[in-house]
Amino acid sequence: MEASATWKIVASGCPDAQAVDHLGSRFLIGNGYLGYRGTLEEYTKEQKTATIIAGLYDRVGKQWREPVNWPNGGFVQVFYRGEPLHVLSSRVVEHRQELNLREAIHERRTLFETGDGTRILVQARRFASLARLPLICLEYTVSADQNCHVILRSGIDGDVWDLNGPHLRESITLEEDDCLSLLARTHEQDIPIAVSVCMNISSPASSQSSLNAIYRDFSVFLRAHEPFTLYKFIAHSSGLENTDPWRQSQQICRQAARLGFEKLLEEHRHCWLERWARSDIQIEGDETAQLALRFSLYHLLSIAPTHTDHISIPARGLSGQTYKGAIFWDTEIFMLPFFLYTFPEIARNLLRYRYHMLEGARRKAVQYGYRGAFYAWESQENGDDACTLFNITDVFTNRPIRTYFRDKQIHISADIVYAIWQYVSVTGDDSLLLDGGAEVVFECARFYLSAIYYRVDKKRYEILDVTGPDEYHERVHNNFYTNRMIAHTFAVCKRVADYLKIHYPETFETILTRLDFAADLTLIEKMIPEIYLPSPDPERRVIPQFDGYLTLEDVSVTDLLARKQHPHEYLGGGQGLATTTQVIKQADVVLALCLFPDDFDEAIKAANWDYYELRTEHGSSLSACAYAQLAARIGRPEQAYYYFLQTAMIDLQEESKQYVGTLYIGGTHPAANGGAWWSLVQGLCGLSFAEGTLVLQPCLPAHWRCVSIPLTLHGQHLHLTINHQEVRVQVDGLLSHPLTISIAGTTCPLPPHGTLTIPLAAEGIHDT
Amino acid sequence: MEASATWKIVASGCPDAQAVDHLGSRFLIGNGYLGYRGTLEEYTKEQKTATIIAGLYDRVGKQWREPVNWPNGGFVQVFYRGEPLHVLSSRVVEHRQELNLREAIHERRTLFETGDGTRILVQARRFASLARLPLICLEYTVSADQNCHVILRSGIDGDVWDLNGPHLRESITLEEDDCLSLLARTHEQDIPIAVSVCMNISSPASSQSSLNAIYRDFSVFLRAHEPFTLYKFIAHSSGLENTDPWRQSQQICRQAARLGFEKLLEEHRHCWLERWARSDIQIEGDETAQLALRFSLYHLLSIAPTHTDHISIPARGLSGQTYKGAIFWDTEIFMLPFFLYTFPEIARNLLRYRYHMLEGARRKAVQYGYRGAFYAWESQENGDDACTLFNITDVFTNRPIRTYFRDKQIHISADIVYAIWQYVSVTGDDSLLLDGGAEVVFECARFYLSAIYYRVDKKRYEILDVTGPDEYHERVHNNFYTNRMIAHTFAVCKRVADYLKIHYPETFETILTRLDFAADLTLIEKMIPEIYLPSPDPERRVIPQFDGYLTLEDVSVTDLLARKQHPHEYLGGGQGLATTTQVIKQADVVLALCLFPDDFDEAIKAANWDYYELRTEHGSSLSACAYAQLAARIGRPEQAYYYFLQTAMIDLQEESKQYVGTLYIGGTHPAANGGAWWSLVQGLCGLSFAEGTLVLQPCLPAHWRCVSIPLTLHGQHLHLTINHQEVRVQVDGLLSHPLTISIAGTTCPLPPHGTLTIPLAAEGIHDT
Repeated sequence: MEASATWKIVASGCPDAQAVDHLGSRFLIGNGYLGYRGTLEEYTKEQKTATIIAGLYDRVGKQWREPVNWPNGGFVQVFYRGEPLHVLSSRVVEHRQELNLREAIHERRTLFETGDGTRILVQARRFASLARLPLICLEYTVSADQNCHVILRSGIDGDVWDLNGPHLRESITLEEDDCLSLLARTHEQDIPIAVSVCMNISSPASSQSSLNAIYRDFSVFLRAHEPFTLYKFIAHSSGLENTDPWRQSQQICRQAARLGFEKLLEEHRHCWLERWARSDIQIEGDETAQLALRFSLYHLLSIAPTHTDHISIPARGLSGQTYKGAIFWDTEIFMLPFFLYTFPEIARNLLRYRYHMLEGARRKAVQYGYRGAFYAWESQENGDDACTLFNITDVFTNRPIRTYFRDKQIHISADIVYAIWQYVSVTGDDSLLLDGGAEVVFECARFYLSAIYYRVDKKRYEILDVTGPDEYHERVHNNFYTNRMIAHTFAVCKRVADYLKIHYPETFETILTRLDFAADLTLIEKMIPEIYLPSPDPERRVIPQFDGYLTLEDVSVTDLLARKQHPHEYLGGGQGLATTTQVIKQADVVLALCLFPDDFDEAIKAANWDYYELRTEHGSSLSACAYAQLAARIGRPEQAYYYFLQTAMIDLQEESKQYVGTLYIGGTHPAANGGAWWSLVQGLCGLSFAEGTLVLQPCLPAHWRCVSIPLTLHGQHLHLTINHQEVRVQVDGLLSHPLTISIAGTTCPLPPHGTLTIPLAAEGIHDT
Repeated sequence: MEASATWKIVASGCPDAQAVDHLGSRFLIGNGYLGYRGTLEEYTKEQKTATIIAGLYDRVGKQWREPVNWPNGGFVQVFYRGEPLHVLSSRVVEHRQELNLREAIHERRTLFETGDGTRILVQARRFASLARLPLICLEYTVSADQNCHVILRSGIDGDVWDLNGPHLRESITLEEDDCLSLLARTHEQDIPIAVSVCMNISSPASSQSSLNAIYRDFSVFLRAHEPFTLYKFIAHSSGLENTDPWRQSQQICRQAARLGFEKLLEEHRHCWLERWARSDIQIEGDETAQLALRFSLYHLLSIAPTHTDHISIPARGLSGQTYKGAIFWDTEIFMLPFFLYTFPEIARNLLRYRYHMLEGARRKAVQYGYRGAFYAWESQENGDDACTLFNITDVFTNRPIRTYFRDKQIHISADIVYAIWQYVSVTGDDSLLLDGGAEVVFECARFYLSAIYYRVDKKRYEILDVTGPDEYHERVHNNFYTNRMIAHTFAVCKRVADYLKIHYPETFETILTRLDFAADLTLIEKMIPEIYLPSPDPERRVIPQFDGYLTLEDVSVTDLLARKQHPHEYLGGGQGLATTTQVIKQADVVLALCLFPDDFDEAIKAANWDYYELRTEHGSSLSACAYAQLAARIGRPEQAYYYFLQTAMIDLQEESKQYVGTLYIGGTHPAANGGAWWSLVQGLCGLSFAEGTLVLQPCLPAHWRCVSIPLTLHGQHLHLTINHQEVRVQVDGLLSHPLTISIAGTTCPLPPHGTLTIPLAAEGIHDT
């Protein structure tokens, strides 16, 4: 592998239809404002082209709400003697698609051979500007091996792929001398949107426009081996942010055209290098892992909202409409750690988003007969739950399956509280609490107060009829993960209250009064010790995932899957194959053991890892990282490494699940991307941070020579370098807060500047 | 209709295969010890011949436990020139099957035409002796229209129909001069059984025997029009009741043979006339209703255990192995009223059976993490739950469906308590309480104490995750029926405790100590007012069947059924069509309103009747009688009559459901039979009895002239005669206890003897 190979992903050869779906996700470019799928310029909706602007949702009729796929401003098609050159239908001599992860540039290079033997080379580069968020820039170069004429068709394709669309109506196309525009409005909320395109050529042979497409055809005479380059500057704007999206988008793309591609690329590149400086982890001795990790972080950085705290990161990022473009617990539990330790300002945005959704969570609680904040399982821009009651279609009868994701996955509120508390711990920034965080915590605690039950006979609070992380077992009682998270919510509630009481007594009183929370707080504090936490069974030391779990049929994953009668049949739900067995979809108890590492000793953790690993189907992309994390914590670097790679490679392999029932669920997996960081840094490197003390318990794979990690703790930039012998901590600049470090039994304060090196005791090194 | 027509059911013409199943149930004979299906003498297992002895169960391998179908001692086959004469395959000129309900005699008459035109007439009568329970007597007469030879094959056919058999192993056949026997043992418990047969002919042409069949072939020369008669006396015995069943069965049938058919018939007839004297209801003006009611009572009387209090009545009576021969709540709620008011000694047996099962109920409670007595949903002879976790097969995938009948239908314990309290109220006999009844009540209350939850936020006890009577909606919260029944259980617990404290203080202390119940009793008494009872919604006055019921899809029954893709698909379970809609299987709220008539006023009852009736599929035979009952209570004689007939006619029509999923569920419907009595006496006649006062609120159909009902109250035989003008109460003998009667505003004591006539006020009469 060449040196730059760990910064680049490449796909060679012509893809088939299924690969096109995968590549569209894998080669996505984005900047947090928008995501643009990694499709080729000549692709149309059949190949799932998509431009997703974060935070814009729409509903058509009674179908579910989902993100709007915008008109595609990146469309370019070359015609040679009337024949469109298309990777999927033309004769292709060479084809290659690349993504430069360091600079976030998408490139393609295709050598076509036409009917008469003329070879035409198409090369293109594009990026979603990190400096100018609504902007995508495209450089499209065409050349031929002999003199010839080609037509370049370029413009905006408004006939886009939709799951439950079309979402845009009243589209109109506008053509000015230098600028093409497509304007439309959403169905549900009548929000205007506009896409405008400036190009570097102004004299088309002809223009074509329909209600939802506008193109210019340029007639180009190519001299043999002399390339011709088209530049496109594509700007997006909507009524969400601007009263006149048309003018706004025109302005952006005109200004971009004036600056030119190279200048824009330069500022984009600069922004990305700054991002990487704060987040790039270097792994010496494993280029596969290095590339997979960078790929994961690239995707997280591409979709992280920096411009607003009113949106968060959806479960499929900005790669399409899958999962309704909704934000799940994926963000708080699996993506947040990366941001917390590298870009706490983005972490803050993600958590502030939840504060903005508080009213929606209150509405949901009322709807279900509870009080407080019952957060949406699938959250969009309004805080209401986008999750439908029938989420999946039965492949045997084609009937909708009643799923209980929306009703019963009540752990979502606790996940948010967990994340808020992590934020406060890791950043040392209590302003989030004052800016709504405390309110969220209190309202979530109040929700659980209203939802849990006291079992008089056993003198304990139980949490009944829930769905935990493992979605194959819906409507269970005393799910360990859920119970533990709720106990934690109550504990955080008390800690936040105590903290505010001491440090911000007036604010505390104001919140208490505004929320009418005093009596509930007293009750919650009393409940804490009485919440039932299932304990390991004495014999096997296995914590039952829920009441009765260990009595279910104990069949192996392989045997269970062999019972399938249809490749896409859903394993959960009322009649799913897994429902009545111990086969689980994803880490559940194991995840809880990751999130609460001090609850149990290593032997219990190992017993549970061994028991549940055998029974986990990993039907969720959230699963592998927890197994990686916990494997490292019980001193098993090989297993940890295996699951780390499963997580980090998820979108680099073709295997990932594209359908559940009859539903398309393809797209990127940002939670797995976050899980890659989490399982490397907090797993293999064993990093944890609480109460101002940084702990490291590395468990590196034997073939890794060294890992180096940039961190931001309490606002302080640090750089860790870990190998099998020692840990080096470099303080960038001057230490502003006292921090302690604890490694292999050595605990000492960090020096105010410079570098500290601590040797790892023998037991800190796990050779395999 | 001739006068005796209301005492006889008849089927004419040759049946098809499906009709054979129905007739086998409809024409059943029985005596509480055994049931013998209404099949013809030449039938074999293909036609579902069955002899079911109450209380003998067996399991083969991992299949479910079910009653043992005994070797068929009633087998007779005529051969003419080697050709077997068989209703289903021979040429039949005339065929007729009859059941004389008054005398409980099964008759058949078949005129065959043989290949050479000879007509041979077979006539047979049989009865399951009510005077000698293990005995079935058969008279089999054959004649021809011209001189001919026939062979009569008669013996014991051990190759019987089984759902999950064969249950008998090590069978041997024994032949003595006057007696044939078949001996075998059950699989699971190695219980020996024997069937012996004596016949009136002793010189066979030949004998044939195999391991599980023994026959004698008699060569008979028939003179034209001179009948030849074979008598068979068939005796049954098992190791349950006798150490040497073979000798025992030989003794019984030999003694019977000595007495002869006519004498045996006479004593049998006498027993039945006595039964009818205490229970026959006469309806003037409606022969259809008269016949259907007698048919219903005939079946109840045929299967009522008089000889032991260790068995009860299974849901399909003694008609086969359907529903595992198990006892459900059917007995306590739907059959018991008839016995309570006519044969309290049988009612007592049925309830004592539950006391004998108390240990099993305790085991089940422990198994599910509760205390007290959690009675089996499907109860056999040992009190353990015979109900399997996967009760039904999915017709689309052929996979078992997880049903929650066993786990979640916790109302069963409350149903038993309800029945016990009814017994005490109606009979005035407190000995049942002392003979285990109080213990059952206390342990059932303790079970609920251990199973219900306090919702701190709403300050009430809730009953979560249950299945109510409507089995299409499993695992619901706060099912109105269940909550109401549990509140009643607690109230009865307190009443029984208070009663014993006053009347039997020492016994009370003994029970309290033995059960260690004092603390629980205090707690239960405190809980009573805090049990949550869902109230009618203010607008529609509808009591929601469970939390969220009224928000489910509101589709009509017809529309729902139109969605079926397979005629036998199950509507409930995790993926059933009804599960996510308001369509219910059977009366649920409406049943609760029947059982607790004083809870709500007539307007609320009417609103709920109207609402739920539209949404009830009546997929259970327990449904119609509740609608009949409540319709009468809200003054709607036509609707009451309609549902009364639905109940009473259930086994007189061919329509009743024979399959659920792929499971055969055919058989008799004793709960509907009991429901016929209940909806007539306690519905149309409006009889209720509590605290020594008999209340009547008749709501007779306009075309009924008069109903006369025998009753036994507090050990006193009474006879009511009700018409549209008045009610006449006749005291048989001398009144031993003071009783009060209350009719249409008139309340007065019953005279010590003679007859009291009370006119019905205008509002007591509902003309239509």
